[in-house]
This record gives sequence, C-alpha cells and structure tokens, in this order.
Amino acid sequence: MPENTMEKPNIVTCTAPVNIAVIKYWGKRNEELILPINSSLSVTLHQDQLKTTTTIATSRSFKEDRIWLNGKEEDITHPRLQSCLREIRRLARKRRNDGDPALDPSVLSLKVHICSVNNFPTAAGLASSAAGFACLVYTLARVFGTEGELSGIARQGSGSACRSMYGGFVQWIMGQKDDGKDSLAQQVEPETHWPELRILVLVASAEKKSVGSTSGMQTSVQTSCLLKHRAESVVPGRMEEMIEAVREKDFVAFAELTMKDSNQFHATCLDTYPPIFYLNSVSQQVINLVHRYNRHYGETRLAYTFDAGPNAVIYTLQQHVPEFVQAVQHFFPPESNGGQFIQGLPVNQAALSEELKQAIGLEPMPKGISYIISTKAGPGPRVVEDPTQHLIGSDGMPKHTV
Amino acid sequence: MPENTMEKPNIVTCTAPVNIAVIKYWGKRNEELILPINSSLSVTLHQDQLKTTTTIATSRSFKEDRIWLNGKEEDITHPRLQSCLREIRRLARKRRNDGDPALDPSVLSLKVHICSVNNFPTAAGLASSAAGFACLVYTLARVFGTEGELSGIARQGSGSACRSMYGGFVQWIMGQKDDGKDSLAQQVEPETHWPELRILVLVASAEKKSVGSTSGMQTSVQTSCLLKHRAESVVPGRMEEMIEAVREKDFVAFAELTMKDSNQFHATCLDTYPPIFYLNSVSQQVINLVHRYNRHYGETRLAYTFDAGPNAVIYTLQQHVPEFVQAVQHFFPPESNGGQFIQGLPVNQAALSEELKQAIGLEPMPKGISYIISTKAGPGPRVVEDPTQHLIGSDGMPKHTV
Repeated sequence: MPENTMEKPNIVTCTAPVNIAVIKYWGKRNEELILPINSSLSVTLHQDQLKTTTTIATSRSFKEDRIWLNGKEEDITHPRLQSCLREIRRLARKRRNDGDPALDPSVLSLKVHICSVNNFPTAAGLASSAAGFACLVYTLARVFGTEGELSGIARQGSGSACRSMYGGFVQWIMGQKDDGKDSLAQQVEPETHWPELRILVLVASAEKKSVGSTSGMQTSVQTSCLLKHRAESVVPGRMEEMIEAVREKDFVAFAELTMKDSNQFHATCLDTYPPIFYLNSVSQQVINLVHRYNRHYGETRLAYTFDAGPNAVIYTLQQHVPEFVQAVQHFFPPESNGGQFIQGLPVNQAALSEELKQAIGLEPMPKGISYIISTKAGPGPRVVEDPTQHLIGSDGMPKHTV
Repeated sequence: MPENTMEKPNIVTCTAPVNIAVIKYWGKRNEELILPINSSLSVTLHQDQLKTTTTIATSRSFKEDRIWLNGKEEDITHPRLQSCLREIRRLARKRRNDGDPALDPSVLSLKVHICSVNNFPTAAGLASSAAGFACLVYTLARVFGTEGELSGIARQGSGSACRSMYGGFVQWIMGQKDDGKDSLAQQVEPETHWPELRILVLVASAEKKSVGSTSGMQTSVQTSCLLKHRAESVVPGRMEEMIEAVREKDFVAFAELTMKDSNQFHATCLDTYPPIFYLNSVSQQVINLVHRYNRHYGETRLAYTFDAGPNAVIYTLQQHVPEFVQAVQHFFPPESNGGQFIQGLPVNQAALSEELKQAIGLEPMPKGISYIISTKAGPGPRVVEDPTQHLIGSDGMPKHTV
C-alpha cells in the first residue's frame, strides 16, 4: 500500500429527531442569541420515522470547515452554523482548561467536514432545521468531547432545535437572563411515559412557499399587539396547564390546549402586518374535520396543530388511529395511482360508519393531502455505532450525493 | 264607489343604507340590549348602489302586526323586531305624555304592516340586517311621529344598524351604562367630507354559509382571550387614530388602520374555540393582491376590510379605481358570458402595466370574484316622498312579491 498523505479522519455519526410544539414558539426577544418571548413545549417524534443523520469527520489534513446538506455543499459561513461551531469549541476549550484529562487538546484546532441528510422530504414541511441543528450540535459535542447541557448551543442554531436535544415531552424554558444562559430545554417526561399517544403528520399537497419562520416572527414581534399579549399573559398559564396534562396523561386537556395554542399562534400571524397565512383551505378542512369528529363522539379524541405551513399534525390515542385515517382518506380522496398513502407505523384497516360521514358532512377535497406519516413519541439524539452508516468516507469526503 | 270596510291605511316609505366598519364591532357585553365590548367606526355606503326600502302602513282595520321581507312574510314575534316595535311605541308614548301637540294619540294603538326589500342580493354577503333594522326604526319613527335620537333603538335590532342611522363617517360609542342609554351612534364627518374616497365591494363566488355573526361573536367572547385584550387595550387607541385619520382625510393612516383592524378581527375569530374562518382562499388572494399593489407603488393606495364572510370591501381614492379594477379582472378572470362584472358607479377603462402584473405575481383564480359593486360614502336614511314607491298598496298588503 502506498503511503497516503491524507491522515485518516476521525469520524462520528449521530441522529436527531424532529419535534412538534403543542405550545408554540413564535417571536424572539434577542435575534442573535435566539432568545424567545415565551416558553414552549413539544413532543419529540420517533426517529424510526423522521430523523436527521449527521456525520462529522476531523482530520489534520482538512484545510477548512465544510458542510454538505442532503448531498449539496452549503456555505459554512452561515452565521447560525458559525455560532454552533464557535460555542462547541469554546465549551471544549473551557473543559480542557478546567483540566479534564479525557480531552485531547489537539482536537480543538482540527477542521471539520460535516455531512447531514434527512430521511424525510423537505416537501413534508417539517421544520428540518430543528432536527438538523440538534444533530449538528450533538455530533460536534461527541467529536470535541464536550458533554452536558447542549440545548443552549442548539438553540443558537435554530430556536426549536433545543427541544430536539431530548426525547419525549420537552419544554424550552424561555429564561430571563440577557446572555441567554437560562434559556434551555428540559425533559418534562420521557418518551416511554405515554405509550398510547400517536402522532399523524398530514402532508398537504404542494403549495407555494410561505413566509419563512425567521422573517415571519420578526414581523409579528414588530407589528402584532396580540402576540405581545399572548407571550406575556397567555402562555405562562398554558405552560403550567400543558405540563400538568402531560404528567397526568390527560388527553382531553392536552388536546384542547394543543388546538387552542395552534389557533392562537395562527391568529397572531393574521394580526401581523402585512398578515401571514400559513393555513390554507386544506388546513381549514382538517380543522373542521377534527372538530366535527370530536363533536360526533361527544369527546375530544383528536387534536390538530400547525406550524409555519399548511400541514396538519394530529395527536390522538392509538385506538382512534384506524378510524380517523379512514376519515382522512374519505374526505381527502388520495390519488388512486399514487404511492403509499400511509407511511411509518402500520395502521389497521377500519370501517367508516355512515353516521360519522354524515356527522362530518364536509365536501371531499380530492388529493388535498398527499400522504400521512404515522409515528409516536421517541428518544433524543443518538450515536450511530455502525461505521457503515457514516455519511463520510475514509477520504474525508461525503460517500455519495443523495 | 261602494263603501269599503277597509279604512285607508296611512303609508310611509323610507330607505336606509348599508355601512362597512373600518374599526370592527365583534362581541357583546349585554346580549339582550346589544351593548358592545368596544366602540366601532364605519363608512355609510351610498344608497344609489345599496339600500333597504321599507314601507310601513297603519290602519284601524289591521288586526295584528305583520312583516314581509323581500316578498316573504316573516315571523313578527322575532325578539329583536319586537324590541324595536316596543321601544318606538314607548318613545312615542313618552312624547305624548310630555305633551307634544303634533302627535295623534290614537296612532299608538294601531297595528302595523311592514314590507321591506333590499336592492342587493343576499349573496352579496353584505350585512343586510344593519340597513334593514335602521330602515325599520327610521320608518316606524315617522309613522309614530317620534323624532330625535333613534340609533339606540336601531342598535337593539342589530348592533351595527345604529351606525346606518347616519350618513358619512359614523362611530358607535360603546357607552358605559348598564341600561345602554349611552351606547349610541354619532356622525364623525358627513358624506360630503371626503369626496375622493371610493368603495368597491368584491363579491366572492358563492361559498357555504359561514358561522353567523350573532353566535360567532358569542363564542368569541366566551373563548378568545385575544378578543378581550383587543376590546380593552387595542380598540380605544385605534378609535382615536381613526377619527383623526378621517378628519384629516389622511388616506394612508385610514387605510393601514382599516387593514390592521380587519386582520385583528379575523385573528380573534381564529383564536375562538372552535375557530371561525370567514376568510377563504379568494379573500387571502385579495389581501395579497392589495399588499403587493401597494408595495409596487411604495405607497398605500388601497385598503381591504372583511366582515363575517369572504367578500372584500376595498377603500381607495377615485384616481386609483380604474387600474385596480383592471388588476382584479386580471387576477380573478370573470366568466366571459357572465353578467355585468362592474356594477354601480361607472369605472373608466385603464391599462394594466406588465410591471404591475409581474410585481403582483399571483396565480390567477378564475371566477374567484363574481362581480364588483362600485360605490362611495352616502347619506343616512331618507323618506321617500313619491307614493308610487310604496311597497304596500291601499289595501294594506304588499303590492307584489319580489
């Protein structure tokens, strides 16, 4: 074997989950540090269905930091990326200065190659930045040997990324300090706490790109007087109620608060000037479907929530999934020759009663929903031990474009 | 001529206008007296385009009070109708007891036949109850010889009807008293104040019936925490600003406040549980069109406002009407064989520049808008002197069904 000038890289691969807020984050009090105007709470989705995988390689041979996202090289100088790299290196340096013997001091000067992919299409409209920055920070921490509280660093990549640092039910405590040191995520309950809970992502048919959440929330903070009131006077009480509902596994309380908070978030978007619309006619139909379904049973069995886009995320209990999925297929008839309408956790067949159809009584919207991803609560970021899963080869470059 | 047992009725006919709020009324603090949780302000539309005509006949031969609306006999025992009849008769009795010599005391015991028609289709989605109750109360007052402040009685028919008792720019002062005596409409400026102002009603294609405003605002008061904040902390300042903008004929201030207040009203509908949607995809497209049009010119030339339905009402200045109407026709291509797309005040032809089309850059929505009614600010209720216009014949019955 000929001598190789390339020094074999050190390679680490990790995965991180998506999270879906039930008490919404919308609005920053500090743009640079990404400090929110209110606390929020989310459920971490299972990585068997939705995850980001990130491989980071370090080598003395690397000349500069580089990053590839979903197979395409991106600009490493992006300020939020730089924040995460800087903060992780600062934390590692601090730990070395504190005399931790386990840390190789030479690693701190090494450049990184970062390669990251999502196992879900961008079209799913799921905020991939949360899983992406959580995975970046978690993997960087492994590379540089820094452990402990990392959500404050993930937060500086993308606000909601801090909540993807934990599994199960996670709150992001807004904090009070100007430096953001107390604006951190915290697990409320682990993913094993509420095994009956199910999550269905209803992916609405492709629509024009909406206003991005970063600029949207800036405009909202500047122009919506209702948002200020929500953040200061409504959310604190809702956070307490939601934590209680999660702890008690009180589905009705959880579901109603989830729907009210989603609606209030979208109300503040409409109170923004110019107004921001994330809910389209498909979203409105899903909202009507859920309320009529619940009304028919005289019981809150389903909850919807919407982020900065038209896709609905439904929370329900395991026993209601088959019938609801049938109802979705009835009121949003899918393309007959399309791919798999239901992806993720298997869903049993169920009958849809004429009574229920009539009680819902909506005009079907053909192809309004492209597909459903069926999932549940899951764990936080993980190290992938199997080296065949690395996205970067021993040459320090991405193995293949996606 | 044979003797007729029917005593010739006394007949009075009046007309009353529609009004469109620019600071919205949504929510009552007293359901029975119709006392609002905030003040509101509207523009009275010209009756040449939109009006209610009401004829009231009295005769000793009438056995009971009766009412016909748009050619169909309706239930006279409707509580709000009864409120207006009772309050007008009470006012007339009070005046007689106060010794007004002009009032014939015998008239108070007479039964009434009421016949009322709108010159605009219900499908136009314009709150016909405001013009209807204003016309009823104004006509009843003529019949019973009661004059003076009548808006407090019209308010008890339909809240916004009190504003249709005056022409031009009208505020409804919410008042503080429990008995509602100070919850009255007041003219801010007459219809002649701002002659350049134009109003375009963009009638959206027929949609399913939305939640009615009476029940909608009840649910909002009960469930929306944002509505309470709006009523108490946002509207008082906006009323002052709006009155100032009207007085100064400051179109930019008037327009921006109008749009913000419409959006905030719809935001509180979305914050209602279950949420209420009045804006549909056509409404959203009109909103986007207006903001992009204004942005293109770097100047606020157009304002939209929406009531409890999808139809947009546009406020603009005379010189901008032709081009905007062209833009509406371009982005909502009408049916080629449909009726007149533009009704009401004539609109000159105008060219639509490629620059403007591209700056707006929306996907056209064919037939999204059925037609446009072009109008301006107009006077309050009027007596119709021409007896051929009476809707009730000398037999005391409606002349013909509509």
